[in-house]
Amino acid sequence: MAADDAQDHEGASAFELDADLVQAVREALEQGARERVLELVEPLHEADLADLLEQLDADERAMLVRVLGRDLDPYALTELEEGVRDEVLEAMAPEDLAAAVKELDADDVVYLVEDLDEDEKARVLQALDPVERVAVEKSLTYPEDTAGRLARHEIVTAPPFWTVGQMIDAMREAEELPDDFHDVVLIDPKVEPVGLVPLSRIMAAPRATRLEDIKREEMHVLRADTSVEDVAYAFQKYRMLTAPVVDADGRLVGVIEFEDAAELIDDEAEEDLKLLAGVGDEELSDSVFETAKARFPWLFVNLLTAILASIVIAQFDRVIEQIVALAVLMPIVASMGGNAGTQTLTVAVRALATRDLTPANAWRIIRREALVGLANGLAFAVIVSGVGLIWYGDPTLGLVLAAAMVINLVAAALAGILIPIGLDKLGADPALASGTFVTTVTDVVGFFAFLGLAGALML
Amino acid sequence: MAADDAQDHEGASAFELDADLVQAVREALEQGARERVLELVEPLHEADLADLLEQLDADERAMLVRVLGRDLDPYALTELEEGVRDEVLEAMAPEDLAAAVKELDADDVVYLVEDLDEDEKARVLQALDPVERVAVEKSLTYPEDTAGRLARHEIVTAPPFWTVGQMIDAMREAEELPDDFHDVVLIDPKVEPVGLVPLSRIMAAPRATRLEDIKREEMHVLRADTSVEDVAYAFQKYRMLTAPVVDADGRLVGVIEFEDAAELIDDEAEEDLKLLAGVGDEELSDSVFETAKARFPWLFVNLLTAILASIVIAQFDRVIEQIVALAVLMPIVASMGGNAGTQTLTVAVRALATRDLTPANAWRIIRREALVGLANGLAFAVIVSGVGLIWYGDPTLGLVLAAAMVINLVAAALAGILIPIGLDKLGADPALASGTFVTTVTDVVGFFAFLGLAGALML
Repeated sequence: MAADDAQDHEGASAFELDADLVQAVREALEQGARERVLELVEPLHEADLADLLEQLDADERAMLVRVLGRDLDPYALTELEEGVRDEVLEAMAPEDLAAAVKELDADDVVYLVEDLDEDEKARVLQALDPVERVAVEKSLTYPEDTAGRLARHEIVTAPPFWTVGQMIDAMREAEELPDDFHDVVLIDPKVEPVGLVPLSRIMAAPRATRLEDIKREEMHVLRADTSVEDVAYAFQKYRMLTAPVVDADGRLVGVIEFEDAAELIDDEAEEDLKLLAGVGDEELSDSVFETAKARFPWLFVNLLTAILASIVIAQFDRVIEQIVALAVLMPIVASMGGNAGTQTLTVAVRALATRDLTPANAWRIIRREALVGLANGLAFAVIVSGVGLIWYGDPTLGLVLAAAMVINLVAAALAGILIPIGLDKLGADPALASGTFVTTVTDVVGFFAFLGLAGALML
Repeated sequence: MAADDAQDHEGASAFELDADLVQAVREALEQGARERVLELVEPLHEADLADLLEQLDADERAMLVRVLGRDLDPYALTELEEGVRDEVLEAMAPEDLAAAVKELDADDVVYLVEDLDEDEKARVLQALDPVERVAVEKSLTYPEDTAGRLARHEIVTAPPFWTVGQMIDAMREAEELPDDFHDVVLIDPKVEPVGLVPLSRIMAAPRATRLEDIKREEMHVLRADTSVEDVAYAFQKYRMLTAPVVDADGRLVGVIEFEDAAELIDDEAEEDLKLLAGVGDEELSDSVFETAKARFPWLFVNLLTAILASIVIAQFDRVIEQIVALAVLMPIVASMGGNAGTQTLTVAVRALATRDLTPANAWRIIRREALVGLANGLAFAVIVSGVGLIWYGDPTLGLVLAAAMVINLVAAALAGILIPIGLDKLGADPALASGTFVTTVTDVVGFFAFLGLAGALML
């Protein structure tokens, strides 16, 4: 949106792409009305164009890419989810693709090409002018998901003894400055970063002020091989705007800006959410077959654990034969355990991700969770013993149900906290498949406690 | 960390608070060794001090606050989770609290006081100097969780016809500039925002350039009553650094900077994660009683739905009496449905949150999910019919298990996508309690299909 249109203020929920617009584009594409398509798409923000491309079917998408040709906003490419991006890049005419990447910054090009196969990657890189190609190739030498790959390599640097006046003049004379940067990086003669000076302070200070006298109070330097998880965590924790990235010798090789890191922070939380539910890296645009295939392994693991629970039940088939009420009530014990375990698990996974759960307080949290499990176990024991009594008129059945509930909620709490801590200690992602492990524990313990107690007390 | 220490580069996983340090502080507190405590705590970053306070027990925490006195870094207060923050504020001597808030920016003070009770709030506000108190009180007039409350009210503005030279001189002469800002807001005579000029462009441009000629290509204006969810979404979508906030008449009242919005974006994903698991706004520092009480309602709802599933089973008690294998195998059908439903649900909740699932593509996604459920239902039908056959040697039992699996995985897919979409249409958070609704559907459908088919085909 241009500043002039900004007068029609965007109120609540006004940011998603208009469904009518998607429909209108669809119809225009179908009728082959090229002018109409351009008219509809031209005013869109790059992020909205990306949303539009994602919402269309694969055929419509390819058609839109061809209709747009050179009018496709190159920045929209960086906003697309991976599957759609690959399709769009494939659908673009080589000369349009070459023109598009020329408009992008080096770090955007890196993001675009890193998942392409070698042929396509070479094709895109050839389109760049030599200076930018070198920058992109340099980024690509760092492993994926590291600070080095993520960093921007156009940096504004200065020696610490420069004055504000010198700095302003130097920037004014520079042939090209990065369009959006927040800090000047102070470097020593060995090209090691020694401080950050925000532009806003340079603005506010008298010309004779030395840069080192107005540098930020803090600077957190990241090594090029730092993982993106640690980059995200450091930015989140220290609320940094800019972090210098250095090589193994401590020499400055790039900077990461807050806006690059913010996307990572969001990605981390999304990853936990999906891992907990056994959904991988899937995207809305994935096909039925891809999606079903991706979700199959988790369901298969769940099947194995469900069979394990069934084997536990099978041990008590003669008890069930005599008291069918046990078959009716046993899912209650298992289901309550599964839910309580998931609650604890979610809190533990999140606390590990934000590094609020550490060896220093782990025992306190484990004790707290066990006590919470005990407290709710006792509360629900009272309730379900009433259910057993009223429904089947059998006080012993109520007692068995109550005792199994206490046992299973304590087991749920312990499984919910100890399993993610254990995975974390082993170096695995604590969210990964934790849910299955926890519900396996609660199913097995729940059925065993309930049917075992019933067999001992009621036969 | 001061820039000088930055030479010891922070590598992978080096950012969490050292457990040894927590232990050392604990021991020093116990021994009443004040000097030692100060020596340990003094070098900590505000975020690390906050982490330390969170990891201590309530008693140790109060002790540390008293020992630190005026040496407690006020910025650490803004980093604390709510429960701990209240405790710390309570433990602070009134004169120390007054000194602390004086050091903070107005938006930090707002964040600190908004959840305090009226007495305490008045006590903190009194400590501020009049100008800052007015700024804080102005922010507090906007409802919580709106753009108006979140915005910074110290803004650098200029008319669009000013030159770069005039702007630089004006900033140089200003008595006080915000310490960290990225854009100058251009305003017209009605104080309506008409453009944003990044400091980096002001730096790069010749002095005679008019500001309106180097303004950003885009500006997204937020109304003061925009919800924080929409603020987070707009920042995430449009990758903005700065958004002007206006009142109902379109007049500029503040700005929101990227770093304020980033925290919201992260919060949204965390909220979904917790809502899906039935965990509310709890914190690691909450007591056993508070935590148990907060988790009780969700478990209670789950109990009711589990009883509903039991009632379904009870309808078939005579079938189970005759074929105990049904009691052994029925949890497999329910469990697979629950997991498949949770997978779909998680994808749907996330896609609704990122507004990638819209009326324009809802039908396509619903169809895709139903087909994924059917595909995996058929795959697992083959597998479980084998289980039924091998385990019990009964082909009819295998067939019943297989048919129930297909029915339940399709039901799971439909419940997993339609329930969050329905909640969203009703204006509720699609993550809220969705998990319970979905597993209720999969339990009821699973037990009913399996036992019903068994009753019809096997007796």
